[in-house]
Amino acid sequence: MLPQLTRASAPLTERVTALDEHGQAVEVSIPAERALTVYVDKRELVTLMTLGAHPEWLVLGYLRNQRLVASADELASITVDWDSGAAAVRTRQGIADLAARTRQRTVTTGCGPGSVFGDLMAELDDIRLGAGRLGQDQLYGLLNAIRLQESTYKSAGSVHGCALFERERMLIFVEDVGRHNAIDTIAGWMWLEHSGAPGGLRGDDKVFYTTGRLTSEMVIKAAQMGVPIVVSRSGITQMGLQVARQLGLCAVGRAVNRRFLCFSAPERLGLSGAADAGG
Amino acid sequence: MLPQLTRASAPLTERVTALDEHGQAVEVSIPAERALTVYVDKRELVTLMTLGAHPEWLVLGYLRNQRLVASADELASITVDWDSGAAAVRTRQGIADLAARTRQRTVTTGCGPGSVFGDLMAELDDIRLGAGRLGQDQLYGLLNAIRLQESTYKSAGSVHGCALFERERMLIFVEDVGRHNAIDTIAGWMWLEHSGAPGGLRGDDKVFYTTGRLTSEMVIKAAQMGVPIVVSRSGITQMGLQVARQLGLCAVGRAVNRRFLCFSAPERLGLSGAADAGG
Repeated sequence: MLPQLTRASAPLTERVTALDEHGQAVEVSIPAERALTVYVDKRELVTLMTLGAHPEWLVLGYLRNQRLVASADELASITVDWDSGAAAVRTRQGIADLAARTRQRTVTTGCGPGSVFGDLMAELDDIRLGAGRLGQDQLYGLLNAIRLQESTYKSAGSVHGCALFERERMLIFVEDVGRHNAIDTIAGWMWLEHSGAPGGLRGDDKVFYTTGRLTSEMVIKAAQMGVPIVVSRSGITQMGLQVARQLGLCAVGRAVNRRFLCFSAPERLGLSGAADAGG
Repeated sequence: MLPQLTRASAPLTERVTALDEHGQAVEVSIPAERALTVYVDKRELVTLMTLGAHPEWLVLGYLRNQRLVASADELASITVDWDSGAAAVRTRQGIADLAARTRQRTVTTGCGPGSVFGDLMAELDDIRLGAGRLGQDQLYGLLNAIRLQESTYKSAGSVHGCALFERERMLIFVEDVGRHNAIDTIAGWMWLEHSGAPGGLRGDDKVFYTTGRLTSEMVIKAAQMGVPIVVSRSGITQMGLQVARQLGLCAVGRAVNRRFLCFSAPERLGLSGAADAGG
Protein backbone atom coordinates (compact mmCIF):
# COMPACT_ATOMS: atom_id res chain seq x y z
CA MET A 1 0.00 0.00 0.00
CA LEU A 2 1.37 3.38 -0.99
CA PRO A 3 2.04 6.08 1.59
CA GLN A 4 -0.20 9.12 1.55
CA LEU A 5 1.72 12.12 0.26
CA THR A 6 0.95 15.79 0.39
CA ARG A 7 1.71 17.80 -2.72
CA ALA A 8 3.32 20.77 -1.06
CA SER A 9 4.49 23.27 -3.62
CA ALA A 10 6.31 26.56 -3.43
CA PRO A 11 7.85 28.95 -5.95
CA LEU A 12 11.08 27.57 -7.39
CA THR A 13 12.59 30.89 -8.28
CA GLU A 14 12.53 34.48 -7.08
CA ARG A 15 13.05 37.64 -9.09
CA VAL A 16 15.64 39.85 -7.47
CA THR A 17 17.41 43.01 -8.45
CA ALA A 18 21.17 42.95 -8.83
CA LEU A 19 23.62 45.55 -10.03
CA ASP A 20 25.73 44.74 -13.04
CA GLU A 21 29.30 45.88 -13.71
CA HIS A 22 27.97 49.23 -14.95
CA GLY A 23 26.09 49.80 -11.71
CA GLN A 24 22.84 49.25 -13.57
CA ALA A 25 19.99 47.53 -11.77
CA VAL A 26 19.04 44.30 -13.54
CA GLU A 27 16.26 41.86 -12.69
CA VAL A 28 17.39 38.25 -12.43
CA SER A 29 15.82 35.02 -11.25
CA ILE A 30 17.54 33.02 -8.53
CA PRO A 31 16.61 29.53 -7.33
CA ALA A 32 14.84 28.96 -4.06
CA GLU A 33 16.70 27.19 -1.27
CA ARG A 34 14.55 25.91 1.56
CA ALA A 35 15.28 24.08 4.77
CA LEU A 36 13.11 20.99 5.09
CA THR A 37 13.46 19.19 8.41
CA VAL A 38 12.48 15.54 8.24
CA TYR A 39 10.77 13.98 11.26
CA VAL A 40 10.29 10.22 11.31
CA ASP A 41 7.54 9.25 13.75
CA LYS A 42 8.09 12.64 15.43
CA ARG A 43 11.82 12.08 15.80
CA GLU A 44 13.99 14.69 14.04
CA LEU A 45 16.17 12.97 11.47
CA VAL A 46 17.82 15.52 9.22
CA THR A 47 17.40 18.90 7.57
CA LEU A 48 17.58 18.92 3.80
CA MET A 49 18.26 22.12 1.90
CA THR A 50 16.16 21.90 -1.22
CA LEU A 51 14.73 23.79 -4.15
CA GLY A 52 11.42 22.33 -3.07
CA ALA A 53 10.00 21.06 -6.34
CA HIS A 54 9.05 17.57 -5.10
CA PRO A 55 9.63 17.50 -1.34
CA GLU A 56 7.63 14.30 -0.73
CA TRP A 57 9.55 12.29 -3.35
CA LEU A 58 12.77 13.76 -1.98
CA VAL A 59 12.02 12.60 1.55
CA LEU A 60 10.95 9.17 0.31
CA GLY A 61 14.08 8.82 -1.81
CA TYR A 62 16.28 10.08 0.99
CA LEU A 63 14.92 7.42 3.33
CA ARG A 64 15.41 4.86 0.56
CA ASN A 65 18.97 5.83 -0.33
CA GLN A 66 19.91 6.02 3.33
CA ARG A 67 18.39 2.55 3.47
CA LEU A 68 16.26 3.47 6.46
CA VAL A 69 13.20 1.96 4.79
CA ALA A 70 13.22 -1.07 2.50
CA SER A 71 10.00 -0.31 0.64
CA ALA A 72 7.53 2.53 0.21
CA ASP A 73 4.87 0.35 1.84
CA GLU A 74 6.61 0.77 5.19
CA LEU A 75 5.47 4.39 5.24
CA ALA A 76 1.94 5.46 6.09
CA SER A 77 2.34 9.09 5.08
CA ILE A 78 4.70 11.94 4.28
CA THR A 79 3.28 15.34 5.13
CA VAL A 80 5.23 18.40 4.01
CA ASP A 81 4.37 21.85 5.33
CA TRP A 82 6.45 24.71 3.95
CA ASP A 83 5.21 27.18 6.57
CA SER A 84 6.99 25.19 9.26
CA GLY A 85 9.62 23.77 6.88
CA ALA A 86 8.79 20.32 8.18
CA ALA A 87 8.28 16.93 6.56
CA ALA A 88 6.45 14.60 8.94
CA VAL A 89 6.98 10.94 8.07
CA ARG A 90 4.71 8.36 9.67
CA THR A 91 5.82 4.75 9.41
CA ARG A 92 3.49 1.77 9.77
CA GLN A 93 5.76 -0.26 12.03
CA GLY A 94 8.41 2.24 13.10
CA ILE A 95 12.06 2.03 12.05
CA ALA A 96 14.13 -0.31 14.18
CA ASP A 97 17.24 1.16 15.70
CA LEU A 98 16.86 4.50 13.88
CA ALA A 99 19.29 6.30 16.16
CA ALA A 100 22.13 3.83 15.66
CA ARG A 101 21.57 3.60 11.92
CA THR A 102 21.79 7.35 11.48
CA ARG A 103 24.75 7.91 13.79
CA GLN A 104 27.63 7.33 11.41
CA ARG A 105 28.36 10.48 9.47
CA THR A 106 30.33 10.77 6.30
CA VAL A 107 30.82 14.00 4.47
CA THR A 108 31.13 13.35 0.80
CA THR A 109 32.04 15.28 -2.27
CA GLY A 110 28.44 15.04 -3.28
CA CYS A 111 26.04 17.79 -2.40
CA GLY A 112 23.94 16.31 0.31
CA PRO A 113 23.55 13.19 2.35
CA GLY A 114 26.82 11.56 3.01
CA SER A 115 26.36 9.53 6.15
CA VAL A 116 25.42 6.54 4.09
CA PHE A 117 28.67 6.50 2.20
CA GLY A 118 30.81 4.35 4.45
CA ASP A 119 28.26 1.57 4.56
CA LEU A 120 27.73 1.77 0.82
CA MET A 121 31.34 1.17 -0.04
CA ALA A 122 31.23 -1.94 2.09
CA GLU A 123 28.13 -3.20 0.32
CA LEU A 124 29.28 -2.71 -3.25
CA ASP A 125 29.84 -6.43 -3.54
CA ASP A 126 26.14 -7.07 -3.07
CA ILE A 127 25.17 -4.93 -6.03
CA ARG A 128 24.50 -6.84 -9.25
CA LEU A 129 23.66 -4.71 -12.27
CA GLY A 130 21.53 -5.98 -15.13
CA ALA A 131 22.63 -6.16 -18.74
CA GLY A 132 21.38 -2.72 -19.70
CA ARG A 133 22.73 -1.21 -22.90
CA LEU A 134 22.32 2.09 -24.71
CA GLY A 135 22.96 2.62 -28.41
CA GLN A 136 25.04 5.63 -29.38
CA ASP A 137 22.08 7.08 -31.29
CA GLN A 138 19.94 6.60 -28.20
CA LEU A 139 22.59 8.42 -26.17
CA TYR A 140 22.43 11.30 -28.63
CA GLY A 141 18.65 11.27 -28.39
CA LEU A 142 18.96 11.42 -24.61
CA LEU A 143 21.35 14.36 -24.77
CA ASN A 144 19.03 16.14 -27.17
CA ALA A 145 16.07 15.63 -24.83
CA ILE A 146 18.14 17.20 -22.05
CA ARG A 147 19.05 20.10 -24.34
CA LEU A 148 15.38 20.79 -25.06
CA GLN A 149 14.19 20.39 -21.47
CA GLU A 150 12.77 23.56 -19.95
CA SER A 151 14.41 24.06 -16.60
CA THR A 152 14.94 26.22 -13.58
CA TYR A 153 18.59 26.12 -14.56
CA LYS A 154 17.82 27.94 -17.79
CA SER A 155 15.82 30.58 -15.98
CA ALA A 156 17.82 30.94 -12.79
CA GLY A 157 20.97 28.81 -12.96
CA SER A 158 22.65 27.49 -9.85
CA VAL A 159 20.77 24.21 -9.70
CA HIS A 160 21.70 20.67 -10.65
CA GLY A 161 19.48 18.63 -12.88
CA CYS A 162 19.08 14.94 -13.18
CA ALA A 163 16.85 12.69 -15.19
CA LEU A 164 15.88 9.06 -15.60
CA PHE A 165 15.64 7.68 -19.11
CA GLU A 166 14.32 4.51 -20.68
CA ARG A 167 16.60 4.43 -23.69
CA GLU A 168 16.20 7.96 -25.15
CA ARG A 169 12.80 8.51 -23.55
CA MET A 170 12.89 10.82 -20.54
CA LEU A 171 10.73 9.44 -17.71
CA ILE A 172 11.37 12.16 -15.16
CA PHE A 173 13.51 15.28 -14.87
CA VAL A 174 14.30 16.74 -11.46
CA GLU A 175 16.28 19.78 -10.40
CA ASP A 176 17.49 20.76 -6.99
CA VAL A 177 20.07 23.01 -5.39
CA GLY A 178 21.87 19.83 -4.37
CA ARG A 179 22.73 17.05 -6.81
CA HIS A 180 21.98 14.39 -4.24
CA ASN A 181 18.56 15.79 -3.54
CA ALA A 182 17.82 15.47 -7.23
CA ILE A 183 18.85 11.82 -7.44
CA ASP A 184 17.12 11.02 -4.14
CA THR A 185 13.96 12.57 -5.56
CA ILE A 186 14.16 10.28 -8.57
CA ALA A 187 14.74 7.31 -6.27
CA GLY A 188 11.60 8.26 -4.38
CA TRP A 189 9.61 8.60 -7.58
CA MET A 190 10.82 5.18 -8.77
CA TRP A 191 9.44 3.65 -5.60
CA LEU A 192 6.01 5.11 -6.22
CA GLU A 193 5.96 3.86 -9.80
CA HIS A 194 5.19 0.15 -10.04
CA SER A 195 5.35 0.13 -6.28
CA GLY A 196 3.71 -3.27 -6.41
CA ALA A 197 7.03 -4.67 -7.55
CA PRO A 198 9.63 -4.92 -4.79
CA GLY A 199 11.96 -1.97 -5.23
CA GLY A 200 9.45 -0.21 -7.43
CA LEU A 201 10.33 0.69 -11.00
CA ARG A 202 13.16 -1.53 -12.24
CA GLY A 203 16.40 0.23 -13.03
CA ASP A 204 18.27 -2.28 -15.16
CA ASP A 205 16.85 -0.94 -18.44
CA LYS A 206 17.19 2.68 -17.40
CA VAL A 207 19.82 5.37 -17.84
CA PHE A 208 20.58 8.00 -15.25
CA TYR A 209 21.62 11.48 -16.39
CA THR A 210 23.09 14.17 -14.18
CA THR A 211 24.52 17.62 -14.82
CA GLY A 212 26.81 17.05 -11.85
CA ARG A 213 30.11 15.27 -11.52
CA LEU A 214 30.27 11.50 -11.31
CA THR A 215 31.68 11.20 -7.81
CA SER A 216 31.80 7.88 -6.01
CA GLU A 217 28.56 8.60 -4.23
CA MET A 218 26.66 9.51 -7.38
CA VAL A 219 27.79 6.30 -9.05
CA ILE A 220 26.88 4.25 -5.99
CA LYS A 221 23.43 5.82 -5.75
CA ALA A 222 22.68 5.05 -9.38
CA ALA A 223 23.85 1.48 -8.83
CA GLN A 224 21.68 1.24 -5.72
CA MET A 225 18.71 2.03 -7.93
CA GLY A 226 19.86 -0.76 -10.24
CA VAL A 227 20.71 1.65 -13.06
CA PRO A 228 23.75 0.36 -15.00
CA ILE A 229 24.45 3.43 -17.15
CA VAL A 230 25.14 6.96 -15.93
CA VAL A 231 25.65 9.96 -18.18
CA SER A 232 27.01 13.30 -17.03
CA ARG A 233 27.63 16.68 -18.59
CA SER A 234 30.60 16.90 -16.21
CA GLY A 235 33.56 14.69 -15.48
CA ILE A 236 34.28 11.81 -13.16
CA THR A 237 36.44 11.49 -10.07
CA GLN A 238 39.00 8.78 -9.41
CA MET A 239 36.83 6.98 -6.88
CA GLY A 240 33.74 7.42 -9.01
CA LEU A 241 35.57 5.61 -11.80
CA GLN A 242 36.91 2.97 -9.45
CA VAL A 243 33.41 2.17 -8.22
CA ALA A 244 31.97 2.19 -11.75
CA ARG A 245 34.63 -0.28 -12.91
CA GLN A 246 34.06 -2.49 -9.88
CA LEU A 247 30.33 -2.61 -10.62
CA GLY A 248 30.64 -2.89 -14.39
CA LEU A 249 28.62 0.31 -14.55
CA CYS A 250 28.96 2.35 -17.73
CA ALA A 251 30.07 5.88 -16.78
CA VAL A 252 29.82 8.46 -19.55
CA GLY A 253 31.18 11.93 -18.85
CA ARG A 254 31.59 15.24 -20.69
CA ALA A 255 28.46 14.35 -22.61
CA VAL A 256 27.19 17.36 -24.56
CA ASN A 257 25.51 17.34 -27.96
CA ARG A 258 27.33 14.62 -29.91
CA ARG A 259 30.48 14.42 -27.83
CA PHE A 260 31.21 12.27 -24.77
CA LEU A 261 33.85 10.23 -22.98
CA CYS A 262 33.06 6.70 -21.90
CA PHE A 263 35.11 5.91 -18.79
CA SER A 264 33.95 2.37 -18.06
CA ALA A 265 31.98 -0.59 -19.41
CA PRO A 266 31.95 0.73 -23.01
CA GLU A 267 30.42 -2.55 -24.12
CA ARG A 268 27.12 -1.20 -22.77
CA LEU A 269 27.37 1.50 -25.45
CA GLY A 270 28.54 -0.94 -28.09
CA LEU A 271 31.83 0.96 -28.32
CA SER A 272 34.95 -0.92 -29.26
CA GLY A 273 38.07 -1.11 -27.12
CA ALA A 274 36.26 -2.02 -23.95
CA ALA A 275 39.49 -3.23 -22.44
CA ASP A 276 41.18 0.10 -23.05
CA ALA A 277 38.61 1.87 -20.91
CA GLY A 278 38.99 -0.64 -18.13
CA GLY A 279 35.43 -1.76 -18.58
CA MET B 1 51.30 27.18 20.38
CA LEU B 2 50.67 25.73 16.95
CA PRO B 3 49.67 22.11 16.45
CA GLN B 4 52.19 19.82 14.83
CA LEU B 5 51.05 18.93 11.33
CA THR B 6 52.19 16.25 8.96
CA ARG B 7 52.51 17.21 5.33
CA ALA B 8 50.90 14.17 3.81
CA SER B 9 50.75 14.46 0.07
CA ALA B 10 49.36 12.29 -2.69
CA PRO B 11 48.85 12.67 -6.43
CA LEU B 12 45.96 15.03 -7.23
CA THR B 13 45.14 13.57 -10.59
CA GLU B 14 45.30 10.25 -12.38
CA ARG B 15 45.72 9.60 -16.10
CA VAL B 16 43.07 7.24 -17.35
CA THR B 17 42.02 5.97 -20.74
CA ALA B 18 38.52 6.74 -21.92
CA LEU B 19 36.80 6.11 -25.25
CA ASP B 20 35.48 9.11 -27.14
CA GLU B 21 32.38 9.23 -29.35
CA HIS B 22 34.39 7.69 -32.20
CA GLY B 23 35.38 4.74 -30.04
CA GLN B 24 38.92 6.07 -29.95
CA ALA B 25 40.96 5.61 -26.81
CA VAL B 26 41.96 8.98 -25.33
CA GLU B 27 44.10 9.69 -22.29
CA VAL B 28 42.54 12.12 -19.82
CA SER B 29 43.33 13.27 -16.31
CA ILE B 30 40.73 12.87 -13.61
CA PRO B 31 40.91 14.28 -10.08
CA ALA B 32 41.65 12.11 -7.09
CA GLU B 33 38.91 11.53 -4.54
CA ARG B 34 40.06 10.11 -1.24
CA ALA B 35 38.27 9.11 1.92
CA LEU B 36 39.90 10.73 4.95
CA THR B 37 38.48 9.58 8.28
CA VAL B 38 39.02 12.09 11.06
CA TYR B 39 39.67 10.77 14.58
CA VAL B 40 39.67 13.26 17.45
CA ASP B 41 41.55 11.84 20.44
CA LYS B 42 40.97 8.39 18.93
CA ARG B 43 37.24 8.94 18.58
CA GLU B 44 35.95 8.68 14.98
CA LEU B 45 34.35 11.96 14.00
CA VAL B 46 33.67 12.01 10.27
CA THR B 47 34.91 10.85 6.90
CA LEU B 48 35.72 13.59 4.43
CA MET B 49 35.96 12.88 0.72
CA THR B 50 38.78 15.03 -0.53
CA LEU B 51 41.16 15.68 -3.39
CA GLY B 52 43.86 15.50 -0.74
CA ALA B 53 45.94 18.56 -1.55
CA HIS B 54 46.11 19.95 2.01
CA PRO B 55 44.55 17.35 4.30
CA GLU B 56 45.92 18.85 7.54
CA TRP B 57 44.55 22.32 6.80
CA LEU B 58 41.28 20.73 5.76
CA VAL B 59 40.90 18.88 9.04
CA LEU B 60 41.85 21.99 11.02
CA GLY B 61 39.38 24.12 9.08
CA TYR B 62 36.69 21.50 9.37
CA LEU B 63 37.05 21.47 13.16
CA ARG B 64 37.01 25.28 13.10
CA ASN B 65 33.98 25.68 10.88
CA GLN B 66 32.11 23.01 12.82
CA ARG B 67 33.09 25.10 15.84
CA LEU B 68 34.45 22.06 17.63
CA VAL B 69 37.64 23.94 18.48
CA ALA B 70 37.88 27.66 19.20
CA SER B 71 41.53 28.10 18.33
CA ALA B 72 44.35 26.18 16.67
CA ASP B 73 46.20 26.17 20.00
CA GLU B 74 43.69 23.68 21.37
CA LEU B 75 45.20 21.04 19.10
CA ALA B 76 48.49 19.28 19.80
CA SER B 77 48.81 17.59 16.43
CA ILE B 78 47.10 16.50 13.22
CA THR B 79 48.64 13.40 11.68
CA VAL B 80 47.44 12.35 8.24
CA ASP B 81 48.31 8.94 6.83
CA TRP B 82 47.04 8.23 3.33
CA ASP B 83 47.81 4.52 3.53
CA SER B 84 45.15 4.14 6.19
CA GLY B 85 43.12 7.13 5.01
CA ALA B 86 43.15 8.46 8.56
CA ALA B 87 43.66 11.88 10.12
CA ALA B 88 44.52 11.54 13.81
CA VAL B 89 43.79 14.71 15.76
CA ARG B 90 45.24 15.06 19.25
CA THR B 91 43.82 17.83 21.40
CA ARG B 92 45.58 19.33 24.41
CA GLN B 93 42.55 19.36 26.68
CA GLY B 94 40.05 17.20 24.83
CA ILE B 95 36.82 18.53 23.35
CA ALA B 96 34.00 18.82 25.84
CA ASP B 97 30.78 17.08 24.92
CA LEU B 98 32.02 16.08 21.47
CA ALA B 99 29.30 13.49 20.98
CA ALA B 100 26.41 15.85 21.64
CA ARG B 101 27.93 18.66 19.60
CA THR B 102 28.27 16.43 16.56
CA ARG B 103 24.89 14.76 16.83
CA GLN B 104 22.73 17.23 14.95
CA ARG B 105 22.93 16.56 11.24
CA THR B 106 21.95 18.87 8.47
CA VAL B 107 22.32 18.03 4.84
CA THR B 108 22.93 21.17 2.90
CA THR B 109 23.12 22.19 -0.69
CA GLY B 110 26.80 22.64 -0.16
CA CYS B 111 29.19 19.86 -0.95
CA GLY B 112 30.30 18.63 2.41
CA PRO B 113 29.75 19.27 6.08
CA GLY B 114 26.24 20.29 6.79
CA SER B 115 25.65 19.40 10.40
CA VAL B 116 26.70 22.83 11.48
CA PHE B 117 24.06 24.56 9.42
CA GLY B 118 21.16 24.67 11.84
CA ASP B 119 23.23 26.21 14.60
CA LEU B 120 24.78 28.68 12.19
CA MET B 121 21.49 30.15 11.10
CA ALA B 122 20.68 30.77 14.75
CA GLU B 123 23.99 32.50 15.33
CA LEU B 124 23.92 34.88 12.41
CA ASP B 125 23.01 37.70 14.75
CA ASP B 126 26.34 37.34 16.50
CA ILE B 127 28.32 37.89 13.32
CA ARG B 128 29.60 41.44 12.81
CA LEU B 129 31.46 42.04 9.57
CA GLY B 130 34.09 44.73 9.25
CA ALA B 131 33.97 47.59 6.76
CA GLY B 132 35.83 45.74 4.01
CA ARG B 133 35.59 47.21 0.52
CA LEU B 134 36.85 46.22 -2.91
CA GLY B 135 37.27 48.60 -5.81
CA GLN B 136 35.90 47.50 -9.16
CA ASP B 137 39.41 47.54 -10.64
CA GLN B 138 40.58 45.38 -7.76
CA LEU B 139 37.71 42.99 -8.47
CA TYR B 140 38.89 42.77 -12.10
CA GLY B 141 42.44 42.18 -10.89
CA LEU B 142 41.13 39.38 -8.68
CA LEU B 143 39.25 37.77 -11.54
CA ASN B 144 42.31 38.02 -13.73
CA ALA B 145 44.46 36.32 -11.08
CA ILE B 146 41.93 33.49 -10.99
CA ARG B 147 42.01 33.27 -14.79
CA LEU B 148 45.80 32.89 -14.75
CA GLN B 149 45.93 30.42 -11.86
CA GLU B 150 47.25 27.00 -12.80
CA SER B 151 44.86 24.42 -11.46
CA THR B 152 43.79 20.83 -11.23
CA TYR B 153 40.54 22.06 -12.76
CA LYS B 154 42.36 23.07 -15.93
CA SER B 155 44.11 19.70 -16.14
CA ALA B 156 41.37 17.40 -14.90
CA GLY B 157 38.15 19.35 -14.32
CA SER B 158 35.56 18.23 -11.83
CA VAL B 159 36.93 20.11 -8.86
CA HIS B 160 35.89 23.32 -7.16
CA GLY B 161 38.37 26.07 -6.52
CA CYS B 162 38.39 28.78 -3.94
CA ALA B 163 40.79 31.47 -3.02
CA LEU B 164 41.39 34.13 -0.41
CA PHE B 165 42.40 37.59 -1.58
CA GLU B 166 43.68 40.73 0.06
CA ARG B 167 42.33 43.21 -2.44
CA GLU B 168 43.53 41.80 -5.81
CA ARG B 169 46.41 39.88 -4.25
CA MET B 170 45.80 36.14 -4.01
CA LEU B 171 46.93 34.78 -0.64
CA ILE B 172 45.95 31.18 -1.15
CA PHE B 173 44.21 29.08 -3.79
CA VAL B 174 42.70 25.71 -2.87
CA GLU B 175 40.89 23.11 -4.91
CA ASP B 176 38.92 20.12 -3.77
CA VAL B 177 36.30 17.75 -5.06
CA GLY B 178 33.93 19.41 -2.61
CA ARG B 179 33.43 23.17 -2.36
CA HIS B 180 33.15 23.01 1.37
CA ASN B 181 36.40 21.14 1.73
CA ALA B 182 38.05 23.95 -0.19
CA ILE B 183 36.68 26.71 2.04
CA ASP B 184 37.38 24.67 5.18
CA THR B 185 40.97 24.25 4.01
CA ILE B 186 41.30 28.02 3.67
CA ALA B 187 39.78 28.46 7.13
CA GLY B 188 42.39 26.07 8.51
CA TRP B 189 45.18 27.91 6.74
CA MET B 190 43.93 31.27 8.14
CA TRP B 191 44.22 29.86 11.62
CA LEU B 192 47.83 28.90 11.10
CA GLU B 193 48.69 32.33 9.76
CA HIS B 194 49.04 34.94 12.52
CA SER B 195 47.91 32.23 14.85
CA GLY B 196 49.07 34.45 17.68
CA ALA B 197 46.03 36.63 17.07
CA PRO B 198 42.78 35.11 18.28
CA GLY B 199 41.01 33.70 15.25
CA GLY B 200 44.20 33.77 13.23
CA LEU B 201 44.46 35.86 10.09
CA ARG B 202 41.83 38.61 10.12
CA GLY B 203 39.15 38.38 7.49
CA ASP B 204 37.65 41.83 7.43
CA ASP B 205 40.03 43.13 4.76
CA LYS B 206 39.85 39.93 2.72
CA VAL B 207 37.78 38.74 -0.23
CA PHE B 208 36.68 35.15 -0.67
CA TYR B 209 36.41 33.72 -4.18
CA THR B 210 34.71 30.46 -5.12
CA THR B 211 33.93 28.74 -8.39
CA GLY B 212 30.88 27.26 -6.69
CA ARG B 213 27.43 28.62 -6.08
CA LEU B 214 26.76 31.05 -3.26
CA THR B 215 24.46 28.91 -1.19
CA SER B 216 23.48 29.89 2.33
CA GLU B 217 26.19 27.74 3.81
CA MET B 218 28.95 29.18 1.64
CA VAL B 219 27.91 32.71 2.59
CA ILE B 220 27.74 31.79 6.27
CA LYS B 221 31.16 30.14 6.22
CA ALA B 222 32.75 33.21 4.65
CA ALA B 223 31.06 35.37 7.27
CA GLN B 224 32.28 33.02 10.02
CA MET B 225 35.80 33.74 8.83
CA GLY B 226 35.00 37.44 9.05
CA VAL B 227 35.23 37.92 5.28
CA PRO B 228 32.68 40.56 4.16
CA ILE B 229 32.94 40.09 0.37
CA VAL B 230 32.38 36.89 -1.57
CA VAL B 231 32.85 36.53 -5.32
CA SER B 232 31.63 33.59 -7.36
CA ARG B 233 31.85 32.49 -10.94
CA SER B 234 28.43 30.96 -10.39
CA GLY B 235 25.13 32.29 -9.12
CA ILE B 236 23.47 32.68 -5.75
CA THR B 237 20.54 30.92 -4.13
CA GLN B 238 17.60 32.58 -2.44
CA MET B 239 18.77 31.72 1.06
CA GLY B 240 22.34 32.60 0.21
CA LEU B 241 21.14 36.07 -0.75
CA GLN B 242 18.92 36.34 2.29
CA VAL B 243 21.84 35.59 4.59
CA ALA B 244 24.15 37.95 2.70
CA ARG B 245 21.64 40.79 3.03
CA GLN B 246 21.11 40.06 6.71
CA LEU B 247 24.85 40.22 7.32
CA GLY B 248 25.53 43.16 5.03
CA LEU B 249 27.89 40.85 3.16
CA CYS B 250 28.66 41.78 -0.43
CA ALA B 251 27.76 38.83 -2.66
CA VAL B 252 29.04 39.03 -6.22
CA GLY B 253 27.98 36.33 -8.65
CA ARG B 254 28.45 35.44 -12.32
CA ALA B 255 31.85 37.06 -12.06
CA VAL B 256 33.94 36.27 -15.14
CA ASN B 257 36.46 38.54 -16.84
CA ARG B 258 34.91 42.03 -16.61
CA ARG B 259 31.33 41.03 -15.99
CA PHE B 260 29.58 40.38 -12.69
CA LEU B 261 26.33 40.78 -10.79
CA CYS B 262 26.37 42.31 -7.32
CA PHE B 263 23.50 40.85 -5.32
CA SER B 264 23.98 42.59 -1.99
CA ALA B 265 25.86 45.37 -0.19
CA PRO B 266 27.04 47.01 -3.43
CA GLU B 267 28.39 49.89 -1.36
CA ARG B 268 31.34 47.62 -0.60
CA LEU B 269 32.14 47.74 -4.31
CA GLY B 270 31.46 51.43 -4.57
CA LEU B 271 28.59 50.72 -6.93
CA SER B 272 25.63 53.04 -7.03
CA GLY B 273 22.06 51.98 -6.35
CA ALA B 274 22.84 50.12 -3.16
CA ALA B 275 19.17 50.22 -2.22
CA ASP B 276 18.17 48.60 -5.49
CA ALA B 277 20.24 45.57 -4.68
CA GLY B 278 18.81 45.26 -1.21
CA GLY B 279 22.21 45.95 0.28
